[in-house]
Amino acid sequence: MTGSDRRPGLRRRDFLSAVGVAGGAGTLLATMGALGLTPAAQADSPYRAPRRSDFSLSGRSSAKVVILGGGIAGLACAYELGKAGYDCTVLEARDRVGGRNFTARGGTTQTDVRGDRQTARFSDDVYMNTGPGRIAQWMVTLDYCRELGVPIEVFTNTNANAFIYNEAAGMREPVRYRTAKADMYGYVSELLAKATDRRALDAELTKADKERLLDFLQDWGAIGGKAGSRRYTGTPRRGYSVDPGAGDQAGVPLGPVPSLSKTFADGVGRYFSFEFDYDQAMLMFQPVGGMDRIPMALAREVGGHRIRLRHVVTRITGGPDDVTVAYRDSNGEQRQITADFCVAALPPHILARIPHNLGADVQNALRAWQVDTAAKIGLEYRSRWWETDHRIYGGITETDLDVEHFWYPSHGFHGRRGILVNYFYDEHARKYGDLSPSERVRRAVAHGVKIHGEKHRTELTNSFSVAWHLIPHIEGAWAVPPVGTPAYRLLGKPAGRLYFAGDWLSHLTGWQAGSFDSARLVVSHLHERALSH
Amino acid sequence: MTGSDRRPGLRRRDFLSAVGVAGGAGTLLATMGALGLTPAAQADSPYRAPRRSDFSLSGRSSAKVVILGGGIAGLACAYELGKAGYDCTVLEARDRVGGRNFTARGGTTQTDVRGDRQTARFSDDVYMNTGPGRIAQWMVTLDYCRELGVPIEVFTNTNANAFIYNEAAGMREPVRYRTAKADMYGYVSELLAKATDRRALDAELTKADKERLLDFLQDWGAIGGKAGSRRYTGTPRRGYSVDPGAGDQAGVPLGPVPSLSKTFADGVGRYFSFEFDYDQAMLMFQPVGGMDRIPMALAREVGGHRIRLRHVVTRITGGPDDVTVAYRDSNGEQRQITADFCVAALPPHILARIPHNLGADVQNALRAWQVDTAAKIGLEYRSRWWETDHRIYGGITETDLDVEHFWYPSHGFHGRRGILVNYFYDEHARKYGDLSPSERVRRAVAHGVKIHGEKHRTELTNSFSVAWHLIPHIEGAWAVPPVGTPAYRLLGKPAGRLYFAGDWLSHLTGWQAGSFDSARLVVSHLHERALSH
Repeated sequence: MTGSDRRPGLRRRDFLSAVGVAGGAGTLLATMGALGLTPAAQADSPYRAPRRSDFSLSGRSSAKVVILGGGIAGLACAYELGKAGYDCTVLEARDRVGGRNFTARGGTTQTDVRGDRQTARFSDDVYMNTGPGRIAQWMVTLDYCRELGVPIEVFTNTNANAFIYNEAAGMREPVRYRTAKADMYGYVSELLAKATDRRALDAELTKADKERLLDFLQDWGAIGGKAGSRRYTGTPRRGYSVDPGAGDQAGVPLGPVPSLSKTFADGVGRYFSFEFDYDQAMLMFQPVGGMDRIPMALAREVGGHRIRLRHVVTRITGGPDDVTVAYRDSNGEQRQITADFCVAALPPHILARIPHNLGADVQNALRAWQVDTAAKIGLEYRSRWWETDHRIYGGITETDLDVEHFWYPSHGFHGRRGILVNYFYDEHARKYGDLSPSERVRRAVAHGVKIHGEKHRTELTNSFSVAWHLIPHIEGAWAVPPVGTPAYRLLGKPAGRLYFAGDWLSHLTGWQAGSFDSARLVVSHLHERALSH
Repeated sequence: MTGSDRRPGLRRRDFLSAVGVAGGAGTLLATMGALGLTPAAQADSPYRAPRRSDFSLSGRSSAKVVILGGGIAGLACAYELGKAGYDCTVLEARDRVGGRNFTARGGTTQTDVRGDRQTARFSDDVYMNTGPGRIAQWMVTLDYCRELGVPIEVFTNTNANAFIYNEAAGMREPVRYRTAKADMYGYVSELLAKATDRRALDAELTKADKERLLDFLQDWGAIGGKAGSRRYTGTPRRGYSVDPGAGDQAGVPLGPVPSLSKTFADGVGRYFSFEFDYDQAMLMFQPVGGMDRIPMALAREVGGHRIRLRHVVTRITGGPDDVTVAYRDSNGEQRQITADFCVAALPPHILARIPHNLGADVQNALRAWQVDTAAKIGLEYRSRWWETDHRIYGGITETDLDVEHFWYPSHGFHGRRGILVNYFYDEHARKYGDLSPSERVRRAVAHGVKIHGEKHRTELTNSFSVAWHLIPHIEGAWAVPPVGTPAYRLLGKPAGRLYFAGDWLSHLTGWQAGSFDSARLVVSHLHERALSH
């Protein structure tokens, strides 16, 4: 998942790059890195999973661990600790593992905190990832897919044929990414080439720099040479109204080309940098068959007997040598479990509501995370008209509408049916959250028609929506870590024999990779401690 | 396939956009289109396949058609004509259908025109598309995949994590696309923002234009504001030397940032426009399991009994009411077939060698196509080190080496093995074509080590290479149509009862879509004629 204000991924991107895109801190750190001056914590020390031989060789025995929460962080802890034979028990409040990694299929039900119950009526061959939907190449999540044997395929995060539509800017119809890019880059090239010709940049550019820059701009912006006054007058990169074909059909390039002022005023360029972001740049990936293939595979490895669903934690009591966790089991009975260690892999705001004896500092720290929300509306269609009518095979259409992003499916190309997903954040997610499921769909479809025409309404068959602040036991999309504060530092350490884990304790909040990385860190510390006592 | 000189796709792109990226003719046509002034031939008249009822309703009977060549154009003709019950026979000189659509798997053999025989020793789970490898969303090829039930998946034409390497520019090591883009776009933004601040563009920009442009540049180029002198000083978009992770691991942005002069001198920007091209922009696609799933599906629909392999055409004799084709069959026997119509779906330079009575004009016209070549070298590795070591899951590394492009596989992610493909053109393809298969591999691997290190050599297990000018009965990668000449016009019409078909008679040469479109055009004309007589 990814937070955003106007431009996709903005909120998250800002966090990811908090080390300094604008202020120069990034450069500072980079320079430090080049000089070997970065802090030890930054060192790229590869994770080493616990092994059974760690205990057998040391003559020690493994420990009993109770894990609160069967989301990615909790499951990953149980999986990694299980490699060394730890006796793990996972308590999960919901009726399924995975946490926010929640894939809706035909028959999936969800009752929100208001009591509104939805059942997805999707066809057998489609699904909707209501939580995380994409994985970057560098993320540890892919390593887990490899290790667990979860097949992956490309997630189509960007598509030249998808649309951009800024209603507030006065755009009357959507424009394709490829067209918007050709025009923006064309005008940027024209302007920079002219300024170079006018010697406005002589202080910055040598003669050789200038020649190379002008060569680049001519190719990259498809502008005329000096004789052509460096003008941008359109390019077939914009697309064609009649495609090139056989015989006489040379193709008719799409026209007319909007003016520079119109192109800038439409604001189409605001979406372009999304695809440069370290966490959003293509290529991206998804598990074949649904994102929940990951928690399903983890649960398989951990073993079903270690995972207790519909078990709600009611009290946490840390002692000098153990931790006792009281819970209400799936039959409504009050029970408790005592273990050598506990890993609390719940969202901080949920954890903060559970009575405990971990102290006021811990309780105050748990309140230091700001919790954001997000929503997804999945619309199943009886035909894949976006492929046949618009030639859009995957990707994301970006808009300034309150439903923000339109995700076309990255799987099932040419299939019978498919699901479009609107994905949006914060105030928009709260606004839609306030509506009934059917009202959400009505409103979303009214927007979609502006992009795609009437088929966005007439071909609709089923829907399912999730507003994450309304999902019981989760109540949010992600929590923004107060990095660098005493609160963040405090919960990065164990409270006695209780460890905290989750993407909220990482620099990758809202990403499964943050949960995996956090789980690995906790497992490493816990294991080191178990071996040293 | 795609021709290129220095920059990928250049040759082809130039052709596709011959209507005028530079000269203004594109704009002219686009304007004409907007005014409804484009020629009738440009009208977007949807193709209508022949039907059996066309004959039953008219009381006419369908005709016998002999089709020369079982490549995409020939098979598509047989498939489309077959829908109306035409009695088609396809004569194919090679031992397989598909023509240049040729997928090499374990056991595939190929003997070139010099007599050099290769057998691919690839593992069961990998393959190599030696000819066409990618399909754009708008191309009719995808419609055939849908109609024929050939599943498709994303072809990874661009990847932010792939490399760029220009040895001649003095680069000492490859740089990732994402890093090169961040730096080029950062410096372009800095320069244009400065020029704007200096009022060098006041003639072009209103106050509102300026504000919008500067807002765009700040976000898109990740540059500082006016107070920061608009400077580009790096951005996490470049990548990280230590990724962001859990706890204290904020990540270490990749450094140091090269100077503007170095960035320009490295010439990394020359590859950026490739992904804007109408025929190359992502998303692109490929059939699951190999490109030859398309000819295999066509052949299945046409019926094996209608397709004769290892049948070499030796003479074409057109008459007033029929066409007689003499051939040498798979047993070496000389035979002939007479049909109401003939479709010659062979490359023009191959057709030109076959004796015929179609006249000197036809013979001269067939010589008007310039034939380009291309080569692919497939290298199978015992591990997918590009995924594990370089975090490159698909995409293409671009270089100025003679092996030009390095394609990482778009399928089999996380699999046991995989095949890297070098793809290159013209003089480079001829140079490698002159080498023995093992010498080709030795040379290609020596280059690959510069990009990927020693694993490019040490993990290699098998290889297979194709230099298209050396493949019997094809002898080229694509033929460049002399669009607008009498020769092109002449062969766009039938010579008596013989029609010409192929991508060489389209504005999409080297693309399967050109073959399909050409086949449809010929089928439409032939069918109209059959119905009117």
